[in-house]
Amino acid sequence: MVDILHKVGIKAPLTEVYKALATREGVAGWWTHNTEGHSEVGRTLTLRFTAGGAEIGHMDMKVLALQPNERVLWQTVDGPAEWIGTQISFELKQDGEFVIVLFKHQGWAEPVEFMHHCSTKWAIFLMSLKSLLETGKGAPSPNDTKIDNWN
Amino acid sequence: MVDILHKVGIKAPLTEVYKALATREGVAGWWTHNTEGHSEVGRTLTLRFTAGGAEIGHMDMKVLALQPNERVLWQTVDGPAEWIGTQISFELKQDGEFVIVLFKHQGWAEPVEFMHHCSTKWAIFLMSLKSLLETGKGAPSPNDTKIDNWN
Repeated sequence: MVDILHKVGIKAPLTEVYKALATREGVAGWWTHNTEGHSEVGRTLTLRFTAGGAEIGHMDMKVLALQPNERVLWQTVDGPAEWIGTQISFELKQDGEFVIVLFKHQGWAEPVEFMHHCSTKWAIFLMSLKSLLETGKGAPSPNDTKIDNWN
Repeated sequence: MVDILHKVGIKAPLTEVYKALATREGVAGWWTHNTEGHSEVGRTLTLRFTAGGAEIGHMDMKVLALQPNERVLWQTVDGPAEWIGTQISFELKQDGEFVIVLFKHQGWAEPVEFMHHCSTKWAIFLMSLKSLLETGKGAPSPNDTKIDNWN
């Protein structure tokens, strides 16, 4: 088992950072514009990604935990084969003027090339989250920064 | 043992991507301006990082392998305690118009918070490498994008 780990520090109120992770509208502001479904424990968020107008991927995330101002936990129930069953968590804590987000995408079976891609891409999306909260403007898909031949 | 993995795809000649990883001048263009030493197998590169004029960290990387247009491998011989003994590799391959860089920072003892930080920061520096090669302008330290309370 191998994990993707990341950390960002965000100069914004803890409640706002939590809201950007724990609500459908929040997630649509930094990950993908096309976020549907319900951010409630036991229900599912559906994320769709497009490039040039065509869908290039989608994921269904079951919401496993929503602990206000502390933690959001999802499990992938549909999407790329390598993602199915993996868990994605965001842990929050205040440190001085920063809200620290510790991110984990856990449960990858193998460190395949796609995992390398997703690791870099998660960093890009977490910087989009930081930007959304600090400047009011994120860069969710399809306006996300492209990193390689896989987008 | 846990690893940091990343991938970027760069639209530039393979020889130029290799040079940016395998020469002191190249590394100074995307990682830190303050890169000294010798990029030769068995010798050492010294990387210094500053913020507001003060040194905030340094690393000594022993060059273990330089395989032209294929692979660069370093081992950390001085720097943060968690880095000592870890290995950093860049594997290159051509895929259509992209040069793919598969990055690994291997040998971390524990997935500590500092590892989360370094994972995100490596993504930032690899995007700086991509920018250097595609636009002629990287963002090496001290002009690197800040991600959190640790810089």
